[in-house]
Amino acid sequence: MARLMCSRCGFTVDLGERYYYKCPRCGSPLDLEYECRWEPRGKGLHRYSSMLPFKPLKSFGEGNTPLVVDKYMGYKVWFKLEYLNPSGSFKDRGSLLAVDHAYRLGFKRVVEDTSGNTGVSVALYSSLYGLESLIVMPRDAPRGKKILVKLLGGRILEVRNRGDAGRVAEEHISSDTYYIAHTWNPLYVIGASTISFEVFEDKGVPDTIVLPVGSGGLFLGVMRGFEKLRDLGLIDDVPRPIIVEGVEVSPVYNRLHREVVEGRSNLADGIMVPNPPRLDEIIDVLEKYRGEIILVDNKDIIEAWRKILRKGYLVEPTSATPIAALEKLINNKRIERDEKILIILTGSGLKTLDLAEKYLLETRGPGPA
Amino acid sequence: MARLMCSRCGFTVDLGERYYYKCPRCGSPLDLEYECRWEPRGKGLHRYSSMLPFKPLKSFGEGNTPLVVDKYMGYKVWFKLEYLNPSGSFKDRGSLLAVDHAYRLGFKRVVEDTSGNTGVSVALYSSLYGLESLIVMPRDAPRGKKILVKLLGGRILEVRNRGDAGRVAEEHISSDTYYIAHTWNPLYVIGASTISFEVFEDKGVPDTIVLPVGSGGLFLGVMRGFEKLRDLGLIDDVPRPIIVEGVEVSPVYNRLHREVVEGRSNLADGIMVPNPPRLDEIIDVLEKYRGEIILVDNKDIIEAWRKILRKGYLVEPTSATPIAALEKLINNKRIERDEKILIILTGSGLKTLDLAEKYLLETRGPGPA
Repeated sequence: MARLMCSRCGFTVDLGERYYYKCPRCGSPLDLEYECRWEPRGKGLHRYSSMLPFKPLKSFGEGNTPLVVDKYMGYKVWFKLEYLNPSGSFKDRGSLLAVDHAYRLGFKRVVEDTSGNTGVSVALYSSLYGLESLIVMPRDAPRGKKILVKLLGGRILEVRNRGDAGRVAEEHISSDTYYIAHTWNPLYVIGASTISFEVFEDKGVPDTIVLPVGSGGLFLGVMRGFEKLRDLGLIDDVPRPIIVEGVEVSPVYNRLHREVVEGRSNLADGIMVPNPPRLDEIIDVLEKYRGEIILVDNKDIIEAWRKILRKGYLVEPTSATPIAALEKLINNKRIERDEKILIILTGSGLKTLDLAEKYLLETRGPGPA
Repeated sequence: MARLMCSRCGFTVDLGERYYYKCPRCGSPLDLEYECRWEPRGKGLHRYSSMLPFKPLKSFGEGNTPLVVDKYMGYKVWFKLEYLNPSGSFKDRGSLLAVDHAYRLGFKRVVEDTSGNTGVSVALYSSLYGLESLIVMPRDAPRGKKILVKLLGGRILEVRNRGDAGRVAEEHISSDTYYIAHTWNPLYVIGASTISFEVFEDKGVPDTIVLPVGSGGLFLGVMRGFEKLRDLGLIDDVPRPIIVEGVEVSPVYNRLHREVVEGRSNLADGIMVPNPPRLDEIIDVLEKYRGEIILVDNKDIIEAWRKILRKGYLVEPTSATPIAALEKLINNKRIERDEKILIILTGSGLKTLDLAEKYLLETRGPGPA
């Protein structure tokens, strides 16, 4: 059975026994320790049950997303269409595991703080498992995401900003209420690792991965996924990571370069995470695999978003950040022509059509219609 | 090689040679004649290339959608999540084939008339194949779908209503411009047949299928898919079909019952097709398999939509029509408790959040937030 474990102070507890969203002794993020075997069977996340800490009791068709082999500015890109998950983002992989865990432990309710996608995802999986959900969101979270949480039966609590949201969510923890805490919860890291298993089975291992980093769950999960495949002897090397932050909230960049950058990047609401709990871990993994970090601003995001939508990838602005980063890499000749580049398209643009209209259509004048 | 063929007057032409959207001799819809073999291999539509008239040159990850095994009012329902296709509807299966066909024949441009989903889908696949797209839409088509067509680089031509749209689209046919004509084009019927192949591989054959009918492409395709599996000896029986129309536009019902019904059903914009070219064929297939037809109105649709969204299925109002029909079947005891029911959820609700807010949230008063 899997055990929650603190790599800093050594605290451990059985995952099936009790849940702590962070180490009750030293306050660090917890990790999960369990045995993995490579025995893919079935579809979606269930296909990789032998690589997970437990097999989820239910499924809503999450995972098994398309991998489209394409070109971008002449470079070979594999686009992983994570926005085609049931709630419209890759978060469904982690939410299935976290809500399943809450259900197993007998909780009646979950609470979560989020700018949007995680809230929609948690509300959906709570509905699937028959749990109540309370979603704490900043007042300026995208309108479409709030509507979706309500339609799914989630209760919304609005707060001033993302910083307040975590504090308010934590106040709701009780013997009945499981705090999802996706920026802390290792089940979100493990959920994201299944993306790598799918890419490996579909096309093999890319040379480079470009992906947005907010709390780092996606980045850490995808890297962990390839590491597990390597440790099991299925692949030789783990790909080089290129992570992307918005200039406005860039904790990884700030720590590495010891400087704060000016500018706005609030269009990428999905990666506005000022204090990611796993920051040390993000930096460790980035340095271990000689990765790079790239910053983008709203102007970069709008241009990249326009182009990627035009190619048919119906994503939200946050998902345009790796495209903006790829353009910078290409323009600065920091990527080779024959590299196989994996880009993970994280969230659906169908939730943010109002923003697309405002930034991409209205500014162009009367337009074609 | 596949041949376009008119079952009424006997006209035939090679599909690789020339395209007619309807029979140039007698004006009937055309069908496709070709050899099928059951050799599934790979993913998505490409998996069923041996069951298609040709193997598409490209792919955008269409098909391979989840099948969720669930309960509804205590009845066993398999939900096929077609709204998780790349452009948010099952139309992508047909659009891949039709746009691929246009590209092979050397056309530079496609034109299509649609209330929405087909337009988004055609614009997406035109972008993939590097063709221009002109989408003729009624002025009152859902706002989100118009935005998407523009973002995908499609040119929109607005007309008064759906009736006008077909005429205007036809006027644009030229040696450069392929008329997609999804209500006529047999490639949309064949595209939809791949849904049945996936259901068969995932779970087997259902007893009953409930699905919305507008032009009938989905219905005819899904039935044709199961018929092909039966003809190849892979299954014994074809499921019983239950088709759903809106009261406001109900050509199948009107023909069968020789009466016009009062009421509004304009929320189901996806099935507002007053004169489906394949009406005779729809009625033939419905009678052959002892199917039923059920009418629903806006009130039925709103109630069913609220419930299905609450369960996590993020669909548009048109996709709530089979749910409304299922409720009627259950309430009238016209379905058995142990039947395996397949419901095809056709289009994404993320495109219609404005409607959801208006009909499902605002009318409930101030709401939970």
